[in-house]
Amino acid sequence: MAILSDKAAENLALVREKKPLIHNITNFVVMNYTANALLSMGASPVMAHAQNEVEDMVSFAGALVLNIGTLTDAWIQSMIKAGTKASAQGTPIILDPVGSGATTLRTNSAKQIIAQTQVSVIRGNASEILSLRHDESKTKGVDSIHSVSEAADTARILAEELQTTLAITGPVDLVTDGQRMVQVSNGHPLMGYVTGTGCTATTTIGAFLAIDGDPLSATATALAFFGLAGEVAGQAATAPGSFMIQLLDALYSMTPSQLKEGCKIEEI
Amino acid sequence: MAILSDKAAENLALVREKKPLIHNITNFVVMNYTANALLSMGASPVMAHAQNEVEDMVSFAGALVLNIGTLTDAWIQSMIKAGTKASAQGTPIILDPVGSGATTLRTNSAKQIIAQTQVSVIRGNASEILSLRHDESKTKGVDSIHSVSEAADTARILAEELQTTLAITGPVDLVTDGQRMVQVSNGHPLMGYVTGTGCTATTTIGAFLAIDGDPLSATATALAFFGLAGEVAGQAATAPGSFMIQLLDALYSMTPSQLKEGCKIEEI
Amino acid sequence: MAILSDKAAENLALVREKKPLIHNITNFVVMNYTANALLSMGASPVMAHAQNEVEDMVSFAGALVLNIGTLTDAWIQSMIKAGTKASAQGTPIILDPVGSGATTLRTNSAKQIIAQTQVSVIRGNASEILSLRHDESKTKGVDSIHSVSEAADTARILAEELQTTLAITGPVDLVTDGQRMVQVSNGHPLMGYVTGTGCTATTTIGAFLAIDGDPLSATATALAFFGLAGEVAGQAATAPGSFMIQLLDALYSMTPSQLKEGCKIEEI
Repeated sequence: MAILSDKAAENLALVREKKPLIHNITNFVVMNYTANALLSMGASPVMAHAQNEVEDMVSFAGALVLNIGTLTDAWIQSMIKAGTKASAQGTPIILDPVGSGATTLRTNSAKQIIAQTQVSVIRGNASEILSLRHDESKTKGVDSIHSVSEAADTARILAEELQTTLAITGPVDLVTDGQRMVQVSNGHPLMGYVTGTGCTATTTIGAFLAIDGDPLSATATALAFFGLAGEVAGQAATAPGSFMIQLLDALYSMTPSQLKEGCKIEEI
Repeated sequence: MAILSDKAAENLALVREKKPLIHNITNFVVMNYTANALLSMGASPVMAHAQNEVEDMVSFAGALVLNIGTLTDAWIQSMIKAGTKASAQGTPIILDPVGSGATTLRTNSAKQIIAQTQVSVIRGNASEILSLRHDESKTKGVDSIHSVSEAADTARILAEELQTTLAITGPVDLVTDGQRMVQVSNGHPLMGYVTGTGCTATTTIGAFLAIDGDPLSATATALAFFGLAGEVAGQAATAPGSFMIQLLDALYSMTPSQLKEGCKIEEI
Repeated sequence: MAILSDKAAENLALVREKKPLIHNITNFVVMNYTANALLSMGASPVMAHAQNEVEDMVSFAGALVLNIGTLTDAWIQSMIKAGTKASAQGTPIILDPVGSGATTLRTNSAKQIIAQTQVSVIRGNASEILSLRHDESKTKGVDSIHSVSEAADTARILAEELQTTLAITGPVDLVTDGQRMVQVSNGHPLMGYVTGTGCTATTTIGAFLAIDGDPLSATATALAFFGLAGEVAGQAATAPGSFMIQLLDALYSMTPSQLKEGCKIEEI
């Protein structure tokens, strides 16, 4: 899809030019790394979670990232408060339902955020995304999906049901808004050995959502950028410690034209 | 002790094969690094501390790591809830009594966890471990211990009193279950210049406890693995920043046979 | 100012010799990095924020660092408790008013800490520092300051009003106690691409305050040391990931005589 590779280059240049402020309410494990990733790519991170502050903070933000790792009830309330304000003012929200499906607290919290705020994009792995279904009869379970086309069918149904754009990430990422369906094949196996690469993909989508009004293209181009940075890092590093540092370097050093050349986005 | 060097190699291979899920309720400073260390060595980390989630989460785990740095009362309650569930289902618990002896909150919290849950292993430095004594008359204080044999005698008495395996770490580590006593001499001086290397040693023991039913051999082999990774890192790095990255790399790259060759474990 | 370059070398040597314990009540994003920076430079970090522990902990400390990023009401109460104890026992306090001026919670919290504890040094960027004014009529706003001499005039007035030493950091740092005024020109542009370099500058000042009784010279020499470490890191790294690791290495490796040679501190 030639158009999306152009768009990827354009989006990366826009992030660097506009340096959007990305408000993250995210888990303790990845706060430092996601903040550094945003700075490296040219965006401006802020982390703030107090119930008596999040509305103030999100009012300046270009996007709001809600990530439910290391969750407690007080944090959910803050996420819903920030998300309600963001929805009212038209600021895009991206949700990372970390661990949804694994515990009742996570699943219920993710569903509550989806019900009470206007989420533009949800990014997770297949089991996290499937745990968000209201009606389990319409789609197959995660263990019954054996091909990309079965996964794509399920994703399309879920995106329509949840009225949002979905990014199901894995070795190959699927992005759909229920109508269009895009596949992103950038990435590197060492990403699975660094904590929070999923969360960092999410916050990268946040930065692109802040400057691209189309959630599908913002998401697909952000995932291609982040995955390609992983590929670049994997050329310089052979183990996870060095890799995670090289990944930050690549987010900083990659030019829009390198992204245009290297991104692997196709409509399917 | 030839048997434990074989066991070290076997345990490392088992961690990589089984990828045990290690549930950490740990301090904010080290969450990212310990998660990355677990991923690098081949295990699966999860961090979760909400009182209404920890029982769900620990039910999937191969081991539970309780670390009392950056503590508050709410976290202790979560630790005891998770620990009670882990004890009931036979999941091994390892306690890191960070700062026990320094403040009343830390000392009391560590003792409360020991009293209310079934802790398999406690890892700390000498003063932390000695602060856990019920009866101070039986053992010498930290300033009165002047030799390895005096430290070993004290450790043995304490392990019996607390009915657990103790790992007293320092330039040389002592591990005892009250009967057997093992000394581990791997390590590197730069480990003292990276925050959370003690906490990371603890979570490494957690990963080994998940696949080795004998707390003494799990603990000794984990400490040898972690210490040897430090030695490998120290060959590539001469300052703490580079060292902490190389240490993650070494946890990933070390083979079981390298561990068998390089580990320095002896029964004393 | 020849005297301050000698003092810088002397202070660095003293930090390494005395290894002061620095008690940090700081934000989640930077806890790991600031702890590693303190260890790398030779100091001893401790992070503790529980209301029922901070008074115990600060009683051992050589300095108290209060940083209001990722703030909630409970943390402010802890900061004030720790700060009150520190003030009573004469332990220097350094405040980092992260985000003051951006939200009401941050501005009010910073002002409350200043009112209720005896703060020795406040470090922030120009807009954070200007947000702390009681009387806005006496000084220009941040957008009306167009020269170093205008900034210096404002800083001097504010330092007198707040009865503290101020460090306004940016490409060039200004430090004043209301009487003396010093400019520090060390630093590197990549510092702006690593999260928490401001917070790490603050905790470096904390370490120097613990061994230098003059807040002005402690602050100026700490900023020169941290900025020069950035310059050294910038010789080895061209992107933010590598840079943040090299910066830790430089904090560890720099000798007092290298600091004396490289520091750029002038009285103005």
